[in-house]
Amino acid sequence: MEINIQRPIMGSVEAISEELNRLFAAKKILVLNLISSPGAGKTTLLEKTLSDLRSEFRMGVIEGDLKTDNDARRVAATGAAAYQINTDGGCHLDSKMVRDVLNHFDLDNLDILFIENVGNLVCPVEFPCGEDYKIALLSLPEGDDKPEKYPLLFNLAGVMLLNKMDLLPYVDFDVERAEKFARALNSDLEIFRISCRNGTGLSAWYDWLRKARLAKL
Amino acid sequence: MEINIQRPIMGSVEAISEELNRLFAAKKILVLNLISSPGAGKTTLLEKTLSDLRSEFRMGVIEGDLKTDNDARRVAATGAAAYQINTDGGCHLDSKMVRDVLNHFDLDNLDILFIENVGNLVCPVEFPCGEDYKIALLSLPEGDDKPEKYPLLFNLAGVMLLNKMDLLPYVDFDVERAEKFARALNSDLEIFRISCRNGTGLSAWYDWLRKARLAKL
Repeated sequence: MEINIQRPIMGSVEAISEELNRLFAAKKILVLNLISSPGAGKTTLLEKTLSDLRSEFRMGVIEGDLKTDNDARRVAATGAAAYQINTDGGCHLDSKMVRDVLNHFDLDNLDILFIENVGNLVCPVEFPCGEDYKIALLSLPEGDDKPEKYPLLFNLAGVMLLNKMDLLPYVDFDVERAEKFARALNSDLEIFRISCRNGTGLSAWYDWLRKARLAKL
Repeated sequence: MEINIQRPIMGSVEAISEELNRLFAAKKILVLNLISSPGAGKTTLLEKTLSDLRSEFRMGVIEGDLKTDNDARRVAATGAAAYQINTDGGCHLDSKMVRDVLNHFDLDNLDILFIENVGNLVCPVEFPCGEDYKIALLSLPEGDDKPEKYPLLFNLAGVMLLNKMDLLPYVDFDVERAEKFARALNSDLEIFRISCRNGTGLSAWYDWLRKARLAKL
């Protein structure tokens, strides 16, 4: 006997995600779901963003990891509200997990909520978390073939951040090639070349955040 | 109603994996399951290994990717037998997929079979593929905290290859810290510091392969 349980599970995850979309729209909160390979730089991007824009926005972070609360402690050090979900081996976050931790945030005093997903280019893409946009981080040492090999993320993302641009001289990465593949998958994709280490490109990313938050008002 | 289908699915995957173990033991084939984040360097490691040891061993590769046959074409260029599995979005390989493609290999003329899993530090760890060892690749740009944050792989692996050692001057990676965490998880773990770019450490990896293959005879 074969039982198809994928559909009812996803139905529930999607229904809760849509409820979250309505809640976040009512509260005018921009919600971003950060997805990348392990070690592409999600937490460091958040540390920079939370720190650089702290006088402009009230920001919160939901951190997803299999183990440890290292990342929540790192981002909380910037002064942002942060809550860590440990999936205990689970490969992604979903809308139910996000719903269940929202009581840790003051939604009436929040402009932007970042969800840092589990480091994984595959599974998190399929589970909505109530976000306005998925943000794909791709770091240069991972190789320029990743949009081609893991197309769904780049197809569904609103933004691709090409991170660790400072390593360009030391790795084989053809920026044009990666961007071309990603745009072929998704002509609406916004792409920013950034380095959290030396600050390259971050102001363009911040301008995108400002525009996206404005659109929620 | 909640249906627990995880156990019967895993039961079948594990039973097939044990059958594969027996088959590979009878054929004296060393089987290695390579697991890492996307872009940690699995395919490049295989290209180097297949090329450097081609006169010593008869080697084959099963490539796992969501999309494309790029990797199978890369390793086949070394002269090794290669077969590409496209999971079409699936996040890991398992013993059934390996079983179903074995007819593409001449098992009576094979010494080492490499299985290059889907780039993912989470899901592939839980699905055995009939391997003798899981080989964990961790590349320096991913960060020294990965054994702590993704413990299961480093707990179950026989070998951890610290790859991209050539990037050490350009990234924040504490080699001792990563090794200490990994050894705390797994005191039997063999660790090699390597660079496929400049060849660092590869001879120690090749010696390990020789010993592991010898143990199958």
